[in-house]
Parts: sequence; C-alpha cells; structure tokens
Amino acid sequence: MITSSEQSETSGRIRNAAFVTKVMSADEAVKFIHPADTVAISGFASAGTPKVIIPALTDRIRESRAAGTNFTINLLTGASVSTETERLLAEIDGIALRMPYQSESTARKKINDGRMDYVDIHLSHVAQQVWEGYYGTIDVAVVEVAGITESGELIPSASIGNNKTWLDVADKIILEVNSWVPAAMEGMHDVYYGTALPPHRTPIQLTRVEDRIGQTTYRVDPAKVVAVVETDARDSASPLTPPDTVSEAIAGHVVDFFAHEVRAGRLPADTLLPLQAGIGNVANAVLGGLDRGGYKGLTCYSEVIQDSMLRLIKDGAVAHASSTALALSENGIEELTANIDFYREHITLRPQEISNHPEIVRRLGIIAMNGMLEADIYGNVNSTHVMGTKIMNGIGGSGDFARNGYVSMFLSPSTARGGAISAIVPMVPHVDHTEHDTQIIVTEHGLADLRALSPRRRARLIIENCAHPDYRPMLRDYFERADAQPDSGHTPHILGEAFGFHQRYLQTGSMR
Amino acid sequence: MITSSEQSETSGRIRNAAFVTKVMSADEAVKFIHPADTVAISGFASAGTPKVIIPALTDRIRESRAAGTNFTINLLTGASVSTETERLLAEIDGIALRMPYQSESTARKKINDGRMDYVDIHLSHVAQQVWEGYYGTIDVAVVEVAGITESGELIPSASIGNNKTWLDVADKIILEVNSWVPAAMEGMHDVYYGTALPPHRTPIQLTRVEDRIGQTTYRVDPAKVVAVVETDARDSASPLTPPDTVSEAIAGHVVDFFAHEVRAGRLPADTLLPLQAGIGNVANAVLGGLDRGGYKGLTCYSEVIQDSMLRLIKDGAVAHASSTALALSENGIEELTANIDFYREHITLRPQEISNHPEIVRRLGIIAMNGMLEADIYGNVNSTHVMGTKIMNGIGGSGDFARNGYVSMFLSPSTARGGAISAIVPMVPHVDHTEHDTQIIVTEHGLADLRALSPRRRARLIIENCAHPDYRPMLRDYFERADAQPDSGHTPHILGEAFGFHQRYLQTGSMR
Repeated sequence: MITSSEQSETSGRIRNAAFVTKVMSADEAVKFIHPADTVAISGFASAGTPKVIIPALTDRIRESRAAGTNFTINLLTGASVSTETERLLAEIDGIALRMPYQSESTARKKINDGRMDYVDIHLSHVAQQVWEGYYGTIDVAVVEVAGITESGELIPSASIGNNKTWLDVADKIILEVNSWVPAAMEGMHDVYYGTALPPHRTPIQLTRVEDRIGQTTYRVDPAKVVAVVETDARDSASPLTPPDTVSEAIAGHVVDFFAHEVRAGRLPADTLLPLQAGIGNVANAVLGGLDRGGYKGLTCYSEVIQDSMLRLIKDGAVAHASSTALALSENGIEELTANIDFYREHITLRPQEISNHPEIVRRLGIIAMNGMLEADIYGNVNSTHVMGTKIMNGIGGSGDFARNGYVSMFLSPSTARGGAISAIVPMVPHVDHTEHDTQIIVTEHGLADLRALSPRRRARLIIENCAHPDYRPMLRDYFERADAQPDSGHTPHILGEAFGFHQRYLQTGSMR
Repeated sequence: MITSSEQSETSGRIRNAAFVTKVMSADEAVKFIHPADTVAISGFASAGTPKVIIPALTDRIRESRAAGTNFTINLLTGASVSTETERLLAEIDGIALRMPYQSESTARKKINDGRMDYVDIHLSHVAQQVWEGYYGTIDVAVVEVAGITESGELIPSASIGNNKTWLDVADKIILEVNSWVPAAMEGMHDVYYGTALPPHRTPIQLTRVEDRIGQTTYRVDPAKVVAVVETDARDSASPLTPPDTVSEAIAGHVVDFFAHEVRAGRLPADTLLPLQAGIGNVANAVLGGLDRGGYKGLTCYSEVIQDSMLRLIKDGAVAHASSTALALSENGIEELTANIDFYREHITLRPQEISNHPEIVRRLGIIAMNGMLEADIYGNVNSTHVMGTKIMNGIGGSGDFARNGYVSMFLSPSTARGGAISAIVPMVPHVDHTEHDTQIIVTEHGLADLRALSPRRRARLIIENCAHPDYRPMLRDYFERADAQPDSGHTPHILGEAFGFHQRYLQTGSMR
C-alpha cells in the first residue's frame, strides 16, 4: 500500500488533509463492499465510471467464492457505464440486480437469460425512487471525482449522473480521485441541492439552458468516506461511426421539419428551442446536420454531449449545451481536453434528475429526438425489446423528453439487418412510448407528422412516408384488411396477425 | 328575441353594460358558427357544459343540410361533456374531429366505426398543443360562466377545463351566462395567467394544494365576444352507484397500502401526500374508504371532485381539494349548493393545464389512483381500447398523474362481464401506461407492489395477488411456458399466444 502522503504528493488533487488520511489501494478499499450490498457507482454513458474499484471488486468476488462464500451485489448507476466495467462484473455473475440502464453485451445476455434482474425505469425517476427507499439501503457509493477541495467538497469528473444522490444516501463512500480528468474542468458543473422529497419540494428556478442554480462541487459528509483511491486513467471512449447516407437522410428530414415549424411561427427562427438528442450514431448525425440549417445560438438540453456537439459549439451554431455527461469518442476527448477553457464556458453538466426533469423539459419546450427500435403504424414506439422479449439497453431518458417536450420525434433507419427487419410494423410487441406521446416519426424515407391526427390517418402517413418501400405493400395490406373488418374500432387491428412480421422473423430470419 | 335589458333584469348576472348589449337568443348566437369551424366548448365531466348553444347548433346543422350544405365542426372540450350534449351532435354526424376525451355511447360508436376522427391526448397537453397551433384556428369558443363582473371579467361555473385557453385563443366567443350556478360559487376558482409558450415559460409557483396563484375570474377581450346567451339550467349529474363489495375490497387494499407506506416512513402519517383519483365508481369507493383510515387533514389534487370527496371534506378527513371540475350526482349537487359557503373554503377549481400539470404533479408527490381496462402480467396498462381496437373513453389525465406522481396505482375489478373478461391478461393489446410507469396494481383480490422488480418478478406477483383465481392457472401456464423457452428474454412472451385471451373472447364471448 502506498502511503497517503506519497499519493497526495503525486497527484495534488486531494487538497483536504482529512481525505488524505483515507487514501488507500483499490484492494484495500473494496474490503468495505460486502456480499449482497447495494452498490451505487458513478458513470453515465462512457464517462466517469470508477476505474479501479470494480476490477478490484471482481477479484474480491472471485476470492470469496473460492473460499466458499457467494458474493453478488445490486448495482445502481447513472445510466450505462463503461463496457469494460459492466462486463467484468457480468461475466462472473456478480450482479444480482441492475438499475437503471445498461448497454453491454454480456450483461444484456445475462438479463435475457433470466440470470440478472434488471429494472428499467425513466432516468428522471432514479434519484427520487432511491430517496423514497424503493431500493432499500444504499450500502456503498463508489464515485469518481476530479479532485477534493480544501474545504472537503468534491470536484466532479466527466459525468454527474446520480452522483449527488449516491453521496447523499449511501452509508459508506469510496472516492476515486482521477488525475487524468483535466483540472480545468472544474467549474463546468452545476450541482443542484434544492431537491427534496414531497411534501417539501419547491419550484426549480431554471428557465434557460445556461442557468446556474447550484454549485460546482458535490457536498459530502467526510464521516461516510471510508476510502479514497487515486487513479490516473482515461475515460472510455464512446464508439461512433461517421454519418452514412441513411443517417444523413434522416438529418435532412429533421432540418426540413425545423424550417417548416419556423415558417409556421411555432419555432423561433434563429435559435429554435432547446434540442435534445439521444445517444447514438443517428442522433450524432442529426445534430451534425444542423450545420446546414444556418442556425446561430442554438441551445441543447440533453443527457449526453456527443462529438458533433463540440463542433457545433466551436462553429457558434450552438451557444450553450447542458447535459449530465460527456459521451465522446477518442477524438472528442482530445478536442475537449485541448480546448477545455473554451468548452467550459459553453457546457454545463448537471445531475440527471435535473437534466431529465419533467418540470424543466416541459418548461424549456425541448425538441426531443430519440432513436427507437421500431414503431407501429399507429405511432406506438418500442425502444427497448427486440422482438418484444429481449432487452436491448433500456428506456433511458427517452420518456422524460418525449412526454414533456415541445415536440416528440423518434428517428430510425427504416430497416435493420440488411433489410430483414422493418422498423415500421403492424403492432409493436413492446411499448415504451405510447401513441399519446409520439408526434413525429422519421426514417431515411421521410417524416410523418402525427400531430392532431386520429389513428387511421396516422397509419396511412407512417406507412407511406416512413416505411421502407419493400414493406409498404405488406403494411397497407394489413391496415386495409384490419380497417375493413365489420367491428374495426378506433385503432383497427387483426389480433391474430398483429405480430406476423415478428413471428416471420423469428421463424425465417426475415420479416419479408 | 328577448331584448337585452329584459334579460339583464331577469338574472342580474351580467354586471357589465357592454356585455348586456350582446345578449341574444341561442338561435341567433349559433349563426356565428359556420361549417368546418373548429369549436371549443366549456365542460369537463358532467359540469359546465354549455346548455343551449349546442342544441341550437344541432338545429342549424339540420337546416343547413336540408338546404343542401353539409355542416360539421371540429369539437374541442375540456374532457367529456354532458352526455346529452355530446349525443346531440354525434347522432347527426355533426363532429368531424373530436379532442381530447369523450364518454358518450353514440360518439363512441361513430369513432369506432371510423366515422368520427378522435385524437386521444393527455389532458395536460391540450392547452399547449392548441396554443402551438396543432389544431389550427379556433374559430369559436362557447363557454358557460356564472356571471360577468362590473369590470367585464367572467365568473367560472362548475368546471374550468380549458376555458381560459379557449377564451384566449378563439377568434369569436359566445358566452352562456347560467343563473342556475350558485352565485356564491364565486371565489372558488383560481385561474392562472402565468402560462406561456416556450421559450417564455417560468416556474409555476404552486407548492401546496391550497395555494392560490391566479385570479378568481377569466379575462376576456370584449371585442371577441359576439354573443351572450342567458340560461338557467341545471348541470347534468354524474351517475354513481353505491360502493359494492368489489370496490370496497379494492379500497381496503389501498388503505392497507397507505398504512404500509406510513410504517415504512415514506408517507406522512396523518396527511399522506395529495391524493388523485380518477373518475368512476371504484375511485369514488376508494376515496370513501379513506374514512376508515382515521386520517385528518388529507389533501386531494385531482381533475374531478366526486360525491365521496364532499363527505370527506365535511368530516374533516380532507382539508382541501383542488380539481378542475365538480362531477357530482344529483345528491352531490344538492349538498354542494346547500353548503356552498363551507365548501368554497375547502375546494379550489383550476384550469386543467394546472390541475394536471406534470410540474405540479411531480412537485406535490401525488398518489395517483386510476382505473384501467386491463393490465398485463408485466404491468403494462390498457386504459382505452377494448380488445385493443375499440375506444372506450380516452386516456384523460391518467398519464399526467401516473407518470409524475409519488406512486402510480391502477385499480380495477379482476373481471368484467360476469367473469367473461379478465382484467389481468398475458399481454395488453393496447398500451396507455407502460411497465416503466406502473408501480401498484390493485384488484379486489389483492395488491401487487411492482416497485424495483424485474419483469419476471412482477409477473408472478400480479398473477398471484391480482388475477381472479379462475384465471390464475391459465396465466401461470402462459408465463411458465414463455419463461421456459430457450430464448425467453427479459420479458418472456409467446407472440403467437400473447392475445389468446382476447382472441378467445372475440370468438366465444369469454376469455375462459
């Protein structure tokens, strides 16, 4: 074990003496984590996951089992965490219960095999549900920070997620102080301490994307901090592929739609309304496509900041972006780090209960753009379950934004798996966003504006504007036969055929 | 035509001379409504529907058609309106498009036959979507009021609904001044004028159920008022049946759950958190059941006030109730009218964009209790579509409260139609509330607390606690076979059988 004074001299990130005395190795620190503990860790998308405690915990679990004691934990996070980290624990069946989001293939397989409990909730609900005790005692919080101030407050790193809540509620706290995080990131964060449980809640006085309503650091009760571990480790990168013709086409339809809304007097011409885009290549391409719109002074209020956002900020197209995490590629991390003083003035990172808060999303009038797995002809959206049964990632924040935004858009290529899967189906076998919440659907073939339309009108528009031409005849045939039934109803369906596309795929490998 | 001075002398409710000059008969007033107009009328549940304009409009439509000109309108309301009113227009196919809620059998049939467009949206979204122009120009607003003040403001009647919005946005306004409404109702209302479209929205500074943030009257531009019609007509009564053993049993489980939450330290012991209960007999019985809990000083924040609420207020169990409408039986109307000075101190009526506002629902931590048609074994709820295709009423405000409340409860008898329909099914064929939003399901057989549970655990709990015993073996069999599949996934289903219950009902008249 390295002595604390040596550690402190090494990084200089621990500026409070009381915390210096708690510096220890990861192997020492994980002794505070016990079998069946509920462990809440930092991390949202690829940013801010603890770097060394989970690998050390994995070793401890193996050792414990070798000695005859089973060892699993319940794992709570901001959203997904770095895939390496999630995989380590998943591979050894170390996670009994997982909440609220994951995107790692090994964990996904365990969940889909029924070997890991997964609770898939709206990201804006996580903090309050933990506060309300739905997940029992939070035994240990493991939180990465960029440093500890003289007064004993904590400087956040590249994501905030639920860290403020974990630090507040956990019985014991392990801090990872990561000196790789640029020291100049200090000041980019706005940690709001005004939340409470009802009946003690008050209005959140945030009215503009760039408003600051909190402080730049986390508060922590030093008596709860059982260990401080120093690290100097890069964040994982978020994989990104360059925009392809499909995502470029989707972006084009979105930009056209914004122009249409501006002409209709529903959106301010230069600045639109605050934009939210989900994680992924399509969202990244759509944001990138805004360059073509000639906008200046746009704002973004979202849960992640991807590479394209950095370029928009640099170009002046985006004046300010608020999120709870950076989710950057290797290049994006380089760009941010090299120009941190510039970006700090244009980016605010917030707790996810604020970045995704229904009160704020509704107030700001956010333009919500989220990906989906599939939509049905009436506008119900499946974001989570492949073929209705297998979880992909989770609902994440898509519901927070889609339900409460100014306009709710869902974007997807019209097909997947080389055309074997249609993203437009007669009925989705899992609903994450209901027909009441879906306003705009966009694929590379076009955009369906469902606002103020009854189900039959929606069906015709979605089929003709969004479905891949190869699938249109099958979709028309289903809808027309459903509609022609004597008791067709408000939302015509033929229950025995509603999942015909999916059943065919399961049987033949293609929905065709 | 009765002259305006005679009219004014008759009722004394029009205290501003400029409005007196516009008094005319309903037959005269409806001449301001033209074919293809979008007409927005007052009314929420059975309260506050205009009494004479719609009958007169029906005559005008008949006459117009007799003369060879078709005549339909688009009809926007608060929620449902009095059944007589809705039926008049529906019977003659007078409604081209209906929004946002209906509960009348003739209109329902037209919608389900595909002869009337119906747009079923969250009640909290109506005002903003109209402001944003999704429904085009609002040509005429027809609003019932209790009177007109000396300064030319309008005294609301027994519901507010979207009236504030209709008066703001409509090109022309027809007022019905109903002298049957107790004059002493003046002061019961709180009409908030702080809403705006983004980017101009600010926090709504309401932190307690009884807070007043607005004014007691509607503002109106007198230049837009084209007609004032005087009436003296009772509100329709909301039909209510006395609580039966099933709804009493449901109420018992709910009261037990509250006690459980109090013991867990999650709800304040005496006052709980503000209660919301949907419209209908079960909700009425559940509220009535609170008498047994020994509570004092409860509050309610809901969209309607039913009869049981009056008794709770009188008993002191409820200190204050906020809603957008009264929905009372004949007896309830008598009780309110006879004791209006007492009830005015304990009831606040608000615009539905405030009664149902996600910002307020989340802040207050509302206990949301809504009825449903059916839930599936994973907690997805169908509130609107019988057998997945035929609309019943609409989603109403259930989503506003279920998504944002402290806890989201859905209540239903375990069976309908003498046992031929199970309210618990393998998969719901229409989703209004997703698995992410459903926390508690209650039938007369018990309560399933789904919080923090993965889908498989939810399924077992819902089947064993909530399903009717006759249906449990069939549900267990479905779940166990779905779970036993090699690729069962996170949420096991057998797509070819998922709607087996519904298909059997459609073929045989029973799900058994």
